Order: sequence, then structure tokens, then C-alpha cells
Amino acid sequence: MKISDIGEFGFIDAVTDDTIFDPNSVVIGIGDDGAVYKATPGMEQISVIDTMVENSHFIIGKTATWYDVGYKAVASNLSDIAAMGGIPTQLVLSTAIPPHMEMTELVDLYKGIKDICRIYRVNILGGDTVTSKEGMVITVAAFGEIETGRAICRSGAKPGDIIAVSHSIGDASGGLDVLLAEKSGYEKLKKAHQFPVPQIELGRKLVAFHGHSLNDISDGLASESNEIAKASHVDLHLKRDLIPCSDELIKWAAAVGKDIWKFVFDGGEDYEMIFTISAPNFNALKKEFPDITEIGNVSKGTGKVYVSYEGQEVLLQPTGWNHFR
Amino acid sequence: MKISDIGEFGFIDAVTDDTIFDPNSVVIGIGDDGAVYKATPGMEQISVIDTMVENSHFIIGKTATWYDVGYKAVASNLSDIAAMGGIPTQLVLSTAIPPHMEMTELVDLYKGIKDICRIYRVNILGGDTVTSKEGMVITVAAFGEIETGRAICRSGAKPGDIIAVSHSIGDASGGLDVLLAEKSGYEKLKKAHQFPVPQIELGRKLVAFHGHSLNDISDGLASESNEIAKASHVDLHLKRDLIPCSDELIKWAAAVGKDIWKFVFDGGEDYEMIFTISAPNFNALKKEFPDITEIGNVSKGTGKVYVSYEGQEVLLQPTGWNHFR
Repeated sequence: MKISDIGEFGFIDAVTDDTIFDPNSVVIGIGDDGAVYKATPGMEQISVIDTMVENSHFIIGKTATWYDVGYKAVASNLSDIAAMGGIPTQLVLSTAIPPHMEMTELVDLYKGIKDICRIYRVNILGGDTVTSKEGMVITVAAFGEIETGRAICRSGAKPGDIIAVSHSIGDASGGLDVLLAEKSGYEKLKKAHQFPVPQIELGRKLVAFHGHSLNDISDGLASESNEIAKASHVDLHLKRDLIPCSDELIKWAAAVGKDIWKFVFDGGEDYEMIFTISAPNFNALKKEFPDITEIGNVSKGTGKVYVSYEGQEVLLQPTGWNHFR
Repeated sequence: MKISDIGEFGFIDAVTDDTIFDPNSVVIGIGDDGAVYKATPGMEQISVIDTMVENSHFIIGKTATWYDVGYKAVASNLSDIAAMGGIPTQLVLSTAIPPHMEMTELVDLYKGIKDICRIYRVNILGGDTVTSKEGMVITVAAFGEIETGRAICRSGAKPGDIIAVSHSIGDASGGLDVLLAEKSGYEKLKKAHQFPVPQIELGRKLVAFHGHSLNDISDGLASESNEIAKASHVDLHLKRDLIPCSDELIKWAAAVGKDIWKFVFDGGEDYEMIFTISAPNFNALKKEFPDITEIGNVSKGTGKVYVSYEGQEVLLQPTGWNHFR
């Protein structure tokens, strides 16, 4: 059965069950003109929005299934909330659906959306469904909360801070490369591309341990580190060979003869974190969250990022690794 | 200059000024991973989302300019907040932009967005910009507030209530018809289609005067009245000839030989309000907000809507006026 057979209201009926995973905060869920929810006293509200377009952000049958698309559309939003130090609570979403889409594909998309919402106890409070002439467009707007005055901005980096990242960098970009090449194996890389993990727990610990600045790595390490440097009016000095890379990424880059640093600096959608923090607080945090790695330090400056490797230090452009070679 | 020449970041820089119209509630605006704002103590939060697709919801140069599209994309969301009785406060938006779009067109779109936000003091807290292969897709997610426990649902209609609507009904649909026919004149109808007025003031007065149920008329009076009847488990009895129609709509329907009741019952995007309320409260409300008209009453029932006209009472389907003729 196609979406054009069942219509908007039939579709809404088919997907609106099983959408509330933290009922305490919900006053009115899906089904009225708007949803109503409670803000927690003492907390500020966070809002984010993110859109994915078929054949631009994903290619069905090649880089993603419909399930993956739903999962990742939510994950990227939760990552943005994590990147402020917040707790995600609610979301609304809009889907522009081509009329040829099968109901089974839509149910698969919504299964991905609901599964990640269940994991992080985020309520689906409503949505809009329209017809797209071309491919599918999915927009998620998510909300979260943060203790008053405690949001971590990209503008807070201080001279003397340690720069650190979570887990390993470049895997999602490597995974996309594997998927586009239609190669088997490299499951960790593929998973990094298809099922990014929003670093909510780390964001919360950075609030507790007084992290100074924070970005999620959605657009590549070169872009994100430059955003922190520019917003904080400081210089960032990265040591290239300290940046954690996974064994699979090293293996894939070698197998296809590509420069691994292009995946690391230019590759997007890792949804890992880059942050700056005082040295004592970094050491304390690392005891509680070991999967973080120091990759450089912050100095007074004018908003530039430098990378040192092979005995030299070069300027890293926001546009990426290749732009100074 | 085209959007493809300037890129996402250049575009963001060009549109992020002049976005905060009520600074008191904003902690962090556009420019970080997420925005942070304050909820007012004692108020619950409302969220809504709405998408418009080029050549489906609007045709540039025929039914709308880019300015109109921006204005209306916000207006429809503010109307949904008004339809809960709320005060709109913040919004985030996402635009999927075809690469051939001119920067002047985008600036025009954002001028429409900003002008309506300025009128209603709604802050633009952030957005996402992606590339669309086909037409433009714009999604707005708006937030508002309502006194705790006071949101007006479509499910609250009570037997004995008066049913009423605001201003006149069917004008937006008539205006679309005029625009598609490329006829001059009928400025009031065209304006109703292009610049709908979210009925925020009426929504607030309905909270004060204890309205029982409320919908904005986005999908036509037949659909909206049936939603109230179904959600409230009551029957609605409408008197067709009491429904207020504008002189221009009467004139246009006569000029093109169309049934005016199709505009009234089936026509969408009026963004006027239909509500039910006790008779004494209706009379008290009408003294403060005169542009409301009683069009029927509520009885015990099973969720049906009936229309009486020319001495008969017939069932009104959610699908519209023509479906019983």
C-alpha cells in the first residue's frame, strides 16, 4: 500500500501510537493543534532543528535503510542538545513524503525514529506530513533542558585549556566511503555512519566538570575546531598524531590508498565531541569517562587553529585538511 | 548571486541579524549547536511544526511572492499556538533551498519571516539550511506558552455549548481561486490567502472566558468541526446561513458560478477560529471581541456534525461540503 492510497490522516493514525517515553512531562501529546509539555523549574530550554534530504544526506539501498534514516534524523538533533550540555526531552518532526513511498517504508522510518526516542526517553509530541514531489525530506526539531546558566557554548575556550575529543574521529566519514564503494566488512565504520551515538552522557559530565567550550563534530574536526577558536577569540593548537583513529579507519584508508587525515579533519557526521577544559578538570573527568583523548591546547590568539605534525605547525582552515597541502 | 555561490555559512551570516524581538527570554540565540531560552514559571510549553512545499503549498509568481511564503510559513505555526490559547514566543526553522535560488529571493523570504516575527515579538532562535534538488521546502517549528492547565483542546466541547467562528470563513480559499485564475481585484480575498492573521488575541480571550474547545481553521470548516465533534464525543449542529461570508467571497462565487459553500466548508488556510463555549461566556466574550458569530450549538452525540439549511439537516462529512450533495 502506498502513502497516496491511505492519505495523511490514515498515515497519522498508523504512526501515532507508542510515542510517549517519559509521560511525566507531557500534558497534551499528538492529536491537537499543538502539543503541551512541562518545563522543569530551574532549567532553561534548549531548541535545535536539523533536516535530512534524500539523495543528498542519504541514498536508500546504498548508504541507509529507511530505519537508519529515522534513527539518524533524531540522533543528529540529540547530538546538538548534548553539545550544549543538555538533556533531550521532546521532539516534533515533519516529513515531506513522495507519493510513491510504500507504507512499509514509512513504518520502517518511524520504527527508527521511535527506537532512538525510546532509548533516550524523548517524547514524540507531534508532526506535520506533506507531499514531496521529489525525494523525502525529514526535519526534526528537538527540545531539551539544561540547568540555568550552565549551557556550554563554543565561545568559552580559555588559554591554557586542554583540547580533547571523545572516542575516535573520522569513522562516520570512513563508513560512508565504504558504503559508497559497496564493500563488505568494516562494520564499525558503517555503524558509525548509520547509527551515530549522541554523546549525551559526556555532555552532562562536562557540565558537572565545568567544561569551557563544546561542539559536536557534525561537520568535521577542521570546521568544528575553527568554530571554537573563532567564537572564543583564542588559538587552538592540535597535535595531529594524538587524534584517536580506529583500527578499521586506518585499515580502510590503507586499503584504498586515501589520506586518513582527510577522513579525520574533513569527514562529517561523527557526532563525537570536541571540547576544551582546564587540565585538572580533564584529569578528573577522564576518571569517570575514560574514552576521551587530549589532542592539543588553547593559547591566546585571534581565532585560528594550527595543526602540528612531522615537525611543522600549519594553519588548519575551517574548510579542511586538504586546503593547506 | 545564487545561493550556490555564497554557500551555507555565507547565507547564515546574511540572515542572522535582526532575529531577536523579545530579548528577555533568550539566553543563547543563533550561532551555537542549539539555542537556549527561558520558560516562564507557572506556564506550560506549547510546540507546533508546519511545512510548506513549493508548487504544492505555493506557486511563486502566481499565488505568492517569496516574501509571502516566509510570512505565511510563520503565520500558520502561530495560528496553531493560538488554537491552544497560547502566546507564541520562539521559533526555529529549516529551509531546503534549490541551488538556482537567487540571494535576493532568499532575503525576500527572510524579510517575510522577520516581519511577522517582529509583529508578534517571536524570536528566531536558529535554523538549518540544506540543499533541495527540486523546489523549496520550508519547515517552521514554533514554541509558545500557556498558563498551567489552561490549554484549550478540541476535545472539550460540551452539550449546550454555542459554536462560533471568528471574522468570515472561506476567504483564503476564495483568494487562492482568484490568484489561480489570475484575476485582478478581490484584494481582501487575496490578502486572506497570502497574509493570514493568527488569532492570538482571540485565543487569549478564550482562555480568559473559559472556552471549552478550539481549533484553527487550517483544513476547512468541515474538517475542523468534525475534529471537535469526534474528539469531544458530541454532535455539532451548524446553521449554514449563519456562517459569516465576506461580500467579496459572495461576489467572486457569483462571478465564476461556483458554490460558495465549497469555499466555506472545504477551503483551507483561513486560520480563523472555530470554538465552543457556554452561552453566557459567549455573550461576555462578544462584548470584548465583537468579530465572532454564533453558527450553531452542541448536543450529546457520537461525534457527528450536521448542517441545517433550506429546511433540512444533513450529515457533514470531514471531507467536505460536496460529499453529501
